[in-house]
Amino acid sequence: MKQIAFLGLGHMGAPMAANLLKAGYLLRVFDLVQSAIDTAVAQGASAARSARDAVQGVDVVISMLPASHHVESLYLGDDGLLAHIAPGTLVLECSTIAPASARKVHHAAAERGLEMLDAPVSGGTAGAAAGTLTFMVGGDEAVLEKARPVFEAMGRNIFHAGGDGAGQVAKVCNNQLLAVLMIGTAESLALGVANGLDPKVLSEIMRRSSGGNWALEVYNPWPGVMENAPASREYEGGFMSALMAKDLGLAQEAAALTGNSTPMGSLALSLYRMLLKKGYAEKDFSSVQKLFES
Amino acid sequence: MKQIAFLGLGHMGAPMAANLLKAGYLLRVFDLVQSAIDTAVAQGASAARSARDAVQGVDVVISMLPASHHVESLYLGDDGLLAHIAPGTLVLECSTIAPASARKVHHAAAERGLEMLDAPVSGGTAGAAAGTLTFMVGGDEAVLEKARPVFEAMGRNIFHAGGDGAGQVAKVCNNQLLAVLMIGTAESLALGVANGLDPKVLSEIMRRSSGGNWALEVYNPWPGVMENAPASREYEGGFMSALMAKDLGLAQEAAALTGNSTPMGSLALSLYRMLLKKGYAEKDFSSVQKLFES
Amino acid sequence: MKQIAFLGLGHMGAPMAANLLKAGYLLRVFDLVQSAIDTAVAQGASAARSARDAVQGVDVVISMLPASHHVESLYLGDDGLLAHIAPGTLVLECSTIAPASARKVHHAAAERGLEMLDAPVSGGTAGAAAGTLTFMVGGDEAVLEKARPVFEAMGRNIFHAGGDGAGQVAKVCNNQLLAVLMIGTAESLALGVANGLDPKVLSEIMRRSSGGNWALEVYNPWPGVMENAPASREYEGGFMSALMAKDLGLAQEAAALTGNSTPMGSLALSLYRMLLKKGYAEKDFSSVQKLFES
Amino acid sequence: MKQIAFLGLGHMGAPMAANLLKAGYLLRVFDLVQSAIDTAVAQGASAARSARDAVQGVDVVISMLPASHHVESLYLGDDGLLAHIAPGTLVLECSTIAPASARKVHHAAAERGLEMLDAPVSGGTAGAAAGTLTFMVGGDEAVLEKARPVFEAMGRNIFHAGGDGAGQVAKVCNNQLLAVLMIGTAESLALGVANGLDPKVLSEIMRRSSGGNWALEVYNPWPGVMENAPASREYEGGFMSALMAKDLGLAQEAAALTGNSTPMGSLALSLYRMLLKKGYAEKDFSSVQKLFES
Repeated sequence: MKQIAFLGLGHMGAPMAANLLKAGYLLRVFDLVQSAIDTAVAQGASAARSARDAVQGVDVVISMLPASHHVESLYLGDDGLLAHIAPGTLVLECSTIAPASARKVHHAAAERGLEMLDAPVSGGTAGAAAGTLTFMVGGDEAVLEKARPVFEAMGRNIFHAGGDGAGQVAKVCNNQLLAVLMIGTAESLALGVANGLDPKVLSEIMRRSSGGNWALEVYNPWPGVMENAPASREYEGGFMSALMAKDLGLAQEAAALTGNSTPMGSLALSLYRMLLKKGYAEKDFSSVQKLFES
Repeated sequence: MKQIAFLGLGHMGAPMAANLLKAGYLLRVFDLVQSAIDTAVAQGASAARSARDAVQGVDVVISMLPASHHVESLYLGDDGLLAHIAPGTLVLECSTIAPASARKVHHAAAERGLEMLDAPVSGGTAGAAAGTLTFMVGGDEAVLEKARPVFEAMGRNIFHAGGDGAGQVAKVCNNQLLAVLMIGTAESLALGVANGLDPKVLSEIMRRSSGGNWALEVYNPWPGVMENAPASREYEGGFMSALMAKDLGLAQEAAALTGNSTPMGSLALSLYRMLLKKGYAEKDFSSVQKLFES
Repeated sequence: MKQIAFLGLGHMGAPMAANLLKAGYLLRVFDLVQSAIDTAVAQGASAARSARDAVQGVDVVISMLPASHHVESLYLGDDGLLAHIAPGTLVLECSTIAPASARKVHHAAAERGLEMLDAPVSGGTAGAAAGTLTFMVGGDEAVLEKARPVFEAMGRNIFHAGGDGAGQVAKVCNNQLLAVLMIGTAESLALGVANGLDPKVLSEIMRRSSGGNWALEVYNPWPGVMENAPASREYEGGFMSALMAKDLGLAQEAAALTGNSTPMGSLALSLYRMLLKKGYAEKDFSSVQKLFES
Repeated sequence: MKQIAFLGLGHMGAPMAANLLKAGYLLRVFDLVQSAIDTAVAQGASAARSARDAVQGVDVVISMLPASHHVESLYLGDDGLLAHIAPGTLVLECSTIAPASARKVHHAAAERGLEMLDAPVSGGTAGAAAGTLTFMVGGDEAVLEKARPVFEAMGRNIFHAGGDGAGQVAKVCNNQLLAVLMIGTAESLALGVANGLDPKVLSEIMRRSSGGNWALEVYNPWPGVMENAPASREYEGGFMSALMAKDLGLAQEAAALTGNSTPMGSLALSLYRMLLKKGYAEKDFSSVQKLFES
């Protein structure tokens, strides 16, 4: 378990790969952007000429791609990557994608006798850099135990969410809830401030009362309440609104499969899409506060 | 500060009065229900024949009534109770009412030279009985310091929210946020379970991730996830859905005053009203989970 | 039934009074703005020095004021206007106010033996000028028949909605529905156009299909689809967004009285408040299309 | 243009085929349910053994299937039906499916030199039986003119919505708007009735005012207001709630492609899914009134 193929060196993939290198793993990396490969090589990785080239002779394949269709295109089909991965190799698919897409890759991997886990992360680019990501893992628990050291080189909390695709389901449920509580926090702060309260005082009261939630603990959306939150640096950095909209869209895809009613999650998606149109796509998702400013 | 008039001995008022008695205060109590008076008398209070009778010779007046109009009717008007309270008496209005109503009482009290605080509580009947209520206090901070021992006989967290009416504003903001996060938690759990996850596992993952909130910490709405939560005893006890609907209505009143947009809070109110029509008015408010069951 | 006191000569009241003058009625007018009185006098009205002065010796009193509290302040109280209106006078309260406020005035009028109708209008300033308003009337049907000629001098459709306050209820229900269908139309047009359709073609298809509604018939929110709609003149004129937000607020007040769930109406209110914050308070309410532009 | 292959003889397809037979067309029919074929044969159609068999020697192929994946499975792929349809044949795809799916079929048809139209219908089973359907057609206008006589044998209004897939886009926009105005009508009626109005009176007032819409014209959701509406026969017949939920889901798919915010349409979908869970999946979609009953 020393040789790893790492596919996808974007904002999240690059620091994850860097942490694996620091932990002593040998990496063969590939990305469509040459400079991303170059950076990883400068950190000690070896460059592959293609995804297919990258997976030759490795113990583990990790992929970190933008969306469902990238993952399906990469792995599936008669000549997809799964057809070129040696038996015994472990596949850790860490992209955030639709549960249904994850299940398709699981199914195809199983047909070829490959062990695979869907393992989306949360924690953002800061968590990726610090090696403190949370992994929400779907698939066989024994396989997760085998992969645990690899995950632990990149993250802190490694959860087994359930069977195939369960990691993705847990991720979209969590992020849907996150969006809802962020918007709920933002509109409640705006309501209180408009009615004369100080945002710091109100935040503190709600944080310690039944309105307490992650946003009030570490990610207050009101500028100036928390020095280190994105809200206090004009919503730069953090987790982009565009990505939150994407995750809420995945939650809607999951809800469509099962016919679930998600009134709050659906509304959150509509509000995030409004925020994107307002020009906040690349700002932190706590900038949803902007929808409620007077 | 030893003599207290306590007006309103309902589900909340009765245990609050009991705790004051235990702390050594002398209480003159009044309620429209004679048996409520009798119970308090059996605990050591003395019975008053009317609200006006109760406030004679006391240092502090505490009121705990159901709604804005009860409070306005009690205190205001040429012959309202404020006209019969002696100068120097401290008025602690603990009902959950509209901020605008609280401000009216503040204004009238000030005109008569009386010190008053709006001090709604959270923590429910369990918190009232245990003396662990949270008080969200609006009004002069120096007055709050004077009243602090009285509050501490009934509660644990005493927050100064701001000026006149700020206690009520903090309360409605908090409870609006609470409703939003409870519904968001309920629909996200239902989504995850429908997609194959175990509710306990999903709850634990979200609790420790960015979806973390008070409901997941201590009040999980899914039956069986938390042994001591109302969800695990068929939503008996706790904080009634009808009261949550009332508080969401107060949040809407506050939003109307300032023209605030509260999409999540407004939707929460509509959903709670549906829940009430479904027959869950007197069940715990986490029974909103029922709207999402398959 | 020839002498009329007309109170409130704003955007709506002024043209309504003008139409009464044209129809041959003798008007005594009052408004807080002197120039409004002057204009009416130039059209043939006689000026009153106060509301109380205006109602002396008239057969009918008509009021057209901005909001509930103006109406309550005018009519109610020991020295309110009702105390100064002679028995046998007919009171036509045409403001758009809360049904609960209308019922209070009805009650007080009945106590003094005065016949009163609540009779809010729809049709906007254009309808007021053209004398084509719709009156939604609450109160005794026989009284409505007596007042019908007066209404017909100002409007075209005179509906008897029911008993005391029913005119206001009908108005808020209608305007809530109007807001919902306007937003639904706007977001559906935006969805179709983003997916490649021509807004005129899509409008025509939906108008003639099951999506057909008043907005598509006469008030299309997409610029350029209807030459004469406010959308085609940068949302100038028409019915102001701020007034739609006000009416949606009245619908929420009515819903609070009865505990009704109004998810669409509540969401419409939140969206209109966002629109107001965006700077469209004084634009036509079809400018809600702006929330969905790309 | 006399020989037609008709694929899919369900609730909609069967009466559409019957009308084509009445108009003198020669039909070769196929369905997975033998009894559906038998019924059509009894009406004069000839039975095909498979879809591929059905399309041999015909001038026109019409398909009427339940969902996107059925349509994609039927036509696409190396051995899909398109590969077996003779050049010069006209393909009329009448199912209600995702615009993206329709575009895929258009693209594949064009690659094989086949003329195709996406032409979803509205009007329900009653319109299908009466031959009064509305067709919303996407694709080349010249092709539509060629196909017009065929459409006119089954429907009354034939709209050209635009290019490839535009018929589907128009359909989902229209049905999203229909759902929104139906729910808006239902909740506004419930609000008015709870506040004392007669549902017939209120319906009539709103129908003739700015709240006017298709539901109030011909499909009132309140039982007893319109004798012939599904509401007056316990929501039997008409357009099933489950199908409305499906169409709202397609609208969400379209919105996801373009990032459109559809707050009303999204909420409508959540409310319809609640209605389905409540047991109204096979009732008419106006049964959404049930969510607002007291």
